[in-house]
Amino acid sequence: MKMKAVYLEKIKHFETKEIEIPEPGPEEVLIKVKMVGICGSDVHYFENGRIGEFVVNKPLILGHEAAGEIVKVGKKVKNLKPGDRVAMEPGIPCRKCRYCKSGRYNLCPEVKFWATPPIDGVFTEYTVHPADFCFKIPKNVSFEEGAMFEPLSVGLWATEQVDLKPEKKIAILGVGTIGMMTLISSIANGATNITVFDISPYKLEKSEEIGAKEAVLVDSKEKFEKYYGQFDIVFEAAGNESTISQIPYLLTKGGEGVLIGLPSKDDVSLNINMLISKEAKIKTVFRYANMYPRAVELAASGKIKLKSLITKYYNLNQLQEAFEYVINNREKVIKVMIKI
Amino acid sequence: MKMKAVYLEKIKHFETKEIEIPEPGPEEVLIKVKMVGICGSDVHYFENGRIGEFVVNKPLILGHEAAGEIVKVGKKVKNLKPGDRVAMEPGIPCRKCRYCKSGRYNLCPEVKFWATPPIDGVFTEYTVHPADFCFKIPKNVSFEEGAMFEPLSVGLWATEQVDLKPEKKIAILGVGTIGMMTLISSIANGATNITVFDISPYKLEKSEEIGAKEAVLVDSKEKFEKYYGQFDIVFEAAGNESTISQIPYLLTKGGEGVLIGLPSKDDVSLNINMLISKEAKIKTVFRYANMYPRAVELAASGKIKLKSLITKYYNLNQLQEAFEYVINNREKVIKVMIKI
Amino acid sequence: MKMKAVYLEKIKHFETKEIEIPEPGPEEVLIKVKMVGICGSDVHYFENGRIGEFVVNKPLILGHEAAGEIVKVGKKVKNLKPGDRVAMEPGIPCRKCRYCKSGRYNLCPEVKFWATPPIDGVFTEYTVHPADFCFKIPKNVSFEEGAMFEPLSVGLWATEQVDLKPEKKIAILGVGTIGMMTLISSIANGATNITVFDISPYKLEKSEEIGAKEAVLVDSKEKFEKYYGQFDIVFEAAGNESTISQIPYLLTKGGEGVLIGLPSKDDVSLNINMLISKEAKIKTVFRYANMYPRAVELAASGKIKLKSLITKYYNLNQLQEAFEYVINNREKVIKVMIKI
Amino acid sequence: MKMKAVYLEKIKHFETKEIEIPEPGPEEVLIKVKMVGICGSDVHYFENGRIGEFVVNKPLILGHEAAGEIVKVGKKVKNLKPGDRVAMEPGIPCRKCRYCKSGRYNLCPEVKFWATPPIDGVFTEYTVHPADFCFKIPKNVSFEEGAMFEPLSVGLWATEQVDLKPEKKIAILGVGTIGMMTLISSIANGATNITVFDISPYKLEKSEEIGAKEAVLVDSKEKFEKYYGQFDIVFEAAGNESTISQIPYLLTKGGEGVLIGLPSKDDVSLNINMLISKEAKIKTVFRYANMYPRAVELAASGKIKLKSLITKYYNLNQLQEAFEYVINNREKVIKVMIKI
Repeated sequence: MKMKAVYLEKIKHFETKEIEIPEPGPEEVLIKVKMVGICGSDVHYFENGRIGEFVVNKPLILGHEAAGEIVKVGKKVKNLKPGDRVAMEPGIPCRKCRYCKSGRYNLCPEVKFWATPPIDGVFTEYTVHPADFCFKIPKNVSFEEGAMFEPLSVGLWATEQVDLKPEKKIAILGVGTIGMMTLISSIANGATNITVFDISPYKLEKSEEIGAKEAVLVDSKEKFEKYYGQFDIVFEAAGNESTISQIPYLLTKGGEGVLIGLPSKDDVSLNINMLISKEAKIKTVFRYANMYPRAVELAASGKIKLKSLITKYYNLNQLQEAFEYVINNREKVIKVMIKI
Repeated sequence: MKMKAVYLEKIKHFETKEIEIPEPGPEEVLIKVKMVGICGSDVHYFENGRIGEFVVNKPLILGHEAAGEIVKVGKKVKNLKPGDRVAMEPGIPCRKCRYCKSGRYNLCPEVKFWATPPIDGVFTEYTVHPADFCFKIPKNVSFEEGAMFEPLSVGLWATEQVDLKPEKKIAILGVGTIGMMTLISSIANGATNITVFDISPYKLEKSEEIGAKEAVLVDSKEKFEKYYGQFDIVFEAAGNESTISQIPYLLTKGGEGVLIGLPSKDDVSLNINMLISKEAKIKTVFRYANMYPRAVELAASGKIKLKSLITKYYNLNQLQEAFEYVINNREKVIKVMIKI
Repeated sequence: MKMKAVYLEKIKHFETKEIEIPEPGPEEVLIKVKMVGICGSDVHYFENGRIGEFVVNKPLILGHEAAGEIVKVGKKVKNLKPGDRVAMEPGIPCRKCRYCKSGRYNLCPEVKFWATPPIDGVFTEYTVHPADFCFKIPKNVSFEEGAMFEPLSVGLWATEQVDLKPEKKIAILGVGTIGMMTLISSIANGATNITVFDISPYKLEKSEEIGAKEAVLVDSKEKFEKYYGQFDIVFEAAGNESTISQIPYLLTKGGEGVLIGLPSKDDVSLNINMLISKEAKIKTVFRYANMYPRAVELAASGKIKLKSLITKYYNLNQLQEAFEYVINNREKVIKVMIKI
Repeated sequence: MKMKAVYLEKIKHFETKEIEIPEPGPEEVLIKVKMVGICGSDVHYFENGRIGEFVVNKPLILGHEAAGEIVKVGKKVKNLKPGDRVAMEPGIPCRKCRYCKSGRYNLCPEVKFWATPPIDGVFTEYTVHPADFCFKIPKNVSFEEGAMFEPLSVGLWATEQVDLKPEKKIAILGVGTIGMMTLISSIANGATNITVFDISPYKLEKSEEIGAKEAVLVDSKEKFEKYYGQFDIVFEAAGNESTISQIPYLLTKGGEGVLIGLPSKDDVSLNINMLISKEAKIKTVFRYANMYPRAVELAASGKIKLKSLITKYYNLNQLQEAFEYVINNREKVIKVMIKI
């Protein structure tokens, strides 16, 4: 039994191959992949062949934001059956280290995370996955929304680090996919007073539709100044050195910054005396843990609208075209979805 | 009724004056000051006439680490009486702002803090103070130890930001007075595995006496390298840009850095990608809130030995000499105490 | 200058008197009272002359859910001016005890709380109040909604004790005013999956309008049984021994019960072995602290609809009639409002 | 290859059998058991054949407080090797449920816990165990102390539920093994002001040796009265209805009770109005999670003295005698240890 799988053969070049359909182990399931979103990290590997220490040394299947349909279950699997529609959480931790045992499995040093070399992702027709990392998609939720539980989990995890309350003033710096998911997550957690900052008028407009109270076009660094000292919480989702450096200024006393986006250079300058005199905190997030059940319930509640974030659909055999589209339309792309 | 008060008249020059003994208000007490410790900030004002935005524009009385004896109480004061020995918490907040009402009165924008211009400190014979910011010194504790509740509170507040547990590996960067108080506080909170770093062999030795498990002489930046990735918690008490920059490297995944010391320049470079990939946090502390009751109980328990940290005693009329001694003996001075 | 004030002269009997309009102190304001809600505790004093240890020994003005307009401000008051529309937080704590200083001023042993003997409430034309316990009502919010910030604060404080998240299953036992406010607060904090239980079909229907996912008519104790082991969080707002006793059964492993309502008898039987084997917690709330700013922002956001909870309006001179209406229509009364 | 194993054949009757030495799986180790402590639950099964829903339906090996020496390791085991001295955490969770994934594996509904029917314990010569639930015993720590990491973990977990600080007043009701471990844990976490209550003068004396500030002989219920309203935290380790009922009275405002001991009857009466008016909490603990690493470090630090709690040693072939000794000497037995 064979299936199609699309490999990143070399920088900026995909190739489709026929490979064996894998067999699920006793606690695993076999899934027919239905929808896979293109993540910024996929595009980064496509363009550069690496992210930091993670280097694509041999052909790699990208794609980790996925949903599909169960076609076969391992003999010990109880909660899932063929036909179930599921979203797959893409990182499989060791379950034995201090991080796994204390509920922080996202920090597991032996985690196998789809589309992070050397672990293949799911731009494929089928995949096997541990049953407990597959989450049933509610009836009122589509496969593509299920695929978006992955970036939504990042947003939810970012908001999980802080105590969002209606009286708090929140800023989100950068409203690409992850910033947008942080916006959705903040609102879902009760924030009512959110200001977003971006350089794309299109994304700012979208943010206001979703529920941002104020949307600020950052056409000069001075744009930040009138907001100095105002925010209880600042989410940095742009992954940009200059916006990261703004955090100590933007925070009020006792405020908290949450870094989500990875900046292009490691060392970033921060006004430490200002941070200390405000007794402010800088928190960071790396992926997420235990957020899929929350994404499922939020989607089921009908309170969040993920679908409006999808910019365009492609088929698996158009993967090269899809990636090129993303690269050439950054200002207006939020999420591009691959039908499989 | 007159008393002596020592003013910083100009940079590096004290002058003694006779001023009125103040009268306590209905909820205040009049205290005969007995012991006042010299703090690093006092020395900084003495040498430079300013700390950041706080500038000594007119003669200022320094001194905020103090203990004394009640001589008179306001008519509404119930819990204190003449003769009581007390340690005085030096910052008086507004009691009405959002920070005061939520228990973070150290962030009160209207706090009046002794020896922070334009508020006078207590290198004086008497002072008045709100009764609720005076804490009875236990019988087995001396006035000078009571005066040291102030820097101890800083250490306790630093440890309050994190969850110190025996299985956690702790680093303290810099063991001057505040680092030493952080060491004492960490041990009192249950830490068993603390490594201290300093450039002074004398202070390292003292740290080991107090209970550090390992003491590292930092004679080159490389000294830090063998500790990379090891610490769950790093306290930065040196107030030094280069040690602050080491924090992301020293932390393990999920670790937390706590910044206590103010660096000499505002902007400090941090490896943000490393912080994010470790999901590490940077916390900061500004003074403290509600720590005096803890200091009192710790001292009463006999579990901490503050007295061994006193390097030398001077009288109030030797204040100039005392400050010069501190400046000329930084490597071996921990705390210099003024008897009044 | 005189004003009308309505006193509870004896059980079930109000009397109107003319008394002096009070003068605001330097940090106080004088308020023309506009709307006051009738609270269950007001009715309890009216009917029984006491609540537990609090006994009405002399004529007492009831009423503590209030909003009004500033007519005069003390000379140190900066943030308010005549004409401002405000909601008044009814408890004035000492600001000096360990509870006040640590942000838990609701536990202050010296708090002066309106309409709790011997402290008079605000069924009066004017009142004075500390400026920092008066909160500006947003433009889109009416006086009567402002008055309802008080019971809303109780609901918000109940939800503040737990971590409400979309994936958690929540129960609210009893949806009178406080249960309803807990429902509103839970939704505002992100809960999506709330089941309410009550004996009044009218209140259950209202709950579903507000956003409860399921509403259960408790016409027999067995009604609870099918929900055993299901809830992550159970709020008890009925103040009923038998519903309190259901909590250990209703909770899932690791669950939390929050007791809001005072039962009519002190001693209540709880299945402690079940609580322990589930490692469940029982939390309680007494009034609230720092919730008015949250109520203000929630109301401003337009996300909550308080007005639909008002059953009927009366004037101040109809107070006797209003209380009798509440007593005779418990099943369908949520909130009765007094216009002043 | 055969080994001896001692079975509870029927109530109050042990029998020794020869059974196969088990083979370790790839991630397991084979351990030569060295020391096993007798737990109160072992004695309860011995005397009654059941604890609540857990019934001994067929011969069962008791014993779950154990330490031993590795004799063989599975092929995937990296961190352990033959000759290593280890303490074994006795509960093996499923690693896949919501509790396991969120760090609360003690609540895993599928946990296999030694000596809880139908899972056999370790009154045997050898046992196999997952490598990640075996913890290396420090050099300065004996096998019997390693075996005591199990009850110590219960005490540590109880203290983990609250924030123990020097200024807090702590009560421990009952100082049998678990109360004693809670005392040791409280001190290790920084508590300085602990009052213990018991009916055994011997255990009270022992508590004072270990570090209790006050030890109260409870020879009448009135003994509690002078302590009403005094404690910030009350640990209930007696498992007694009447002491549990004292908790609301003993707590101060804002206080917390922690229930550790299972009472003999399920329903216990609590003064709920008092709990609410104090805004007090009742927490509970069921076993523990992630406490062995803490026990290891505490023991390694030399700060705790477990050995003094051992009342008597027996050999495996004296198990019947050992259990009878415990039953007949409850007032003075803290821990009886079986050498294997």
